[in-house]
Amino acid sequence: MTRPAASPGRGRRPGGPDTRGEILDSARVSFAAKGYGGTTIRAVATAAGVDPALVHHYFGTKDDLFLAALQLPMDPRAIAPAVFREGVEGAAERLLRVFFSVWEDPQARMPLVALVRSGVAGEPGGGLLRDALLRMVFEPLAQLLAAGDARLRAELVATQMLGLIVARYVLELDPLASMPPEELIPWLAPTLDRYFTGDLPGLSATDDG
Amino acid sequence: MTRPAASPGRGRRPGGPDTRGEILDSARVSFAAKGYGGTTIRAVATAAGVDPALVHHYFGTKDDLFLAALQLPMDPRAIAPAVFREGVEGAAERLLRVFFSVWEDPQARMPLVALVRSGVAGEPGGGLLRDALLRMVFEPLAQLLAAGDARLRAELVATQMLGLIVARYVLELDPLASMPPEELIPWLAPTLDRYFTGDLPGLSATDDG
Repeated sequence: MTRPAASPGRGRRPGGPDTRGEILDSARVSFAAKGYGGTTIRAVATAAGVDPALVHHYFGTKDDLFLAALQLPMDPRAIAPAVFREGVEGAAERLLRVFFSVWEDPQARMPLVALVRSGVAGEPGGGLLRDALLRMVFEPLAQLLAAGDARLRAELVATQMLGLIVARYVLELDPLASMPPEELIPWLAPTLDRYFTGDLPGLSATDDG
Repeated sequence: MTRPAASPGRGRRPGGPDTRGEILDSARVSFAAKGYGGTTIRAVATAAGVDPALVHHYFGTKDDLFLAALQLPMDPRAIAPAVFREGVEGAAERLLRVFFSVWEDPQARMPLVALVRSGVAGEPGGGLLRDALLRMVFEPLAQLLAAGDARLRAELVATQMLGLIVARYVLELDPLASMPPEELIPWLAPTLDRYFTGDLPGLSATDDG
């Protein structure tokens, strides 16, 4: 009778037939009101009227619960390994292709745009954007870069990606917003490439003398 | 007794001693509720209980009124001419220096961060961000670039600047947020330079063959 954690949607558990949905609702309320750091599995379980063990059973870790609550179309923790699977060569283009494969899908884009909107607006729980972005995408990127200034480099990559998101999907600046990804990638990839691996260039003041 | 329009703060006018402030309040309410396009000088005047001519007298054009309502620390229309005054050579670095001269001043930054937050959040009147950014900064930049793809280039510059704003001043990602501008400029200037004037590079597929 016990179903595997991977497909628990219809398992009958104490708390009613939609216990899983109730846990998810409690999790969303808590993440939105208290952010990632202020949310505990225990508090989510209490709010849903279930045992914390059941939350772990359905969703795994707090990170897993967080991702389920955000309804992200892919696991953002998989991005960094995929981007650097073949080394740093071509990583910029691979990151952009992964990015567009998600963001160009209107269904997948919706919760992500909402996350960016509320995160930038500074709404309660807006720290979720930072948690999701930094902890799940850009810290792993920095770890895989393994350079002394890797964290800064990953954040520079984040600036370009965030700006692309805001300009293309939120403000919808044209022509940028209506160009096919294939035409944007050659513009953006060299920027990301330089942030990933480029030398820090000197200021133009070195010209004279 | 008539004061020049440049310093009208205390002029006595029909409508009471703080007519100027009342006009400004009406303008803020209207821009926030109806955006730039939906706001008229006439409606602002009516809401403030004054004649439209008085609004023009105090504030000039609708753009001028818009800027006064936003309390921007500088006229964004002056940015593009200043950046290209000495040609496109060094324009990226000049843009970054103008940018940081405003955004590093906490007093000046406050209304700008508010503008970005509400603009990205999609709040009513959030179109102000697009109006202020596009119409006053990036369209003039594109005009001065005078290339066939100038508008796209200006928008690519906008992506990097928007992402910098969000990462440094809104999400406050560290170390990016705590680095002095002098250390960030050499990272960012080559990106803007390439967007301003660089050739469109081909995809990496041209390597083989």
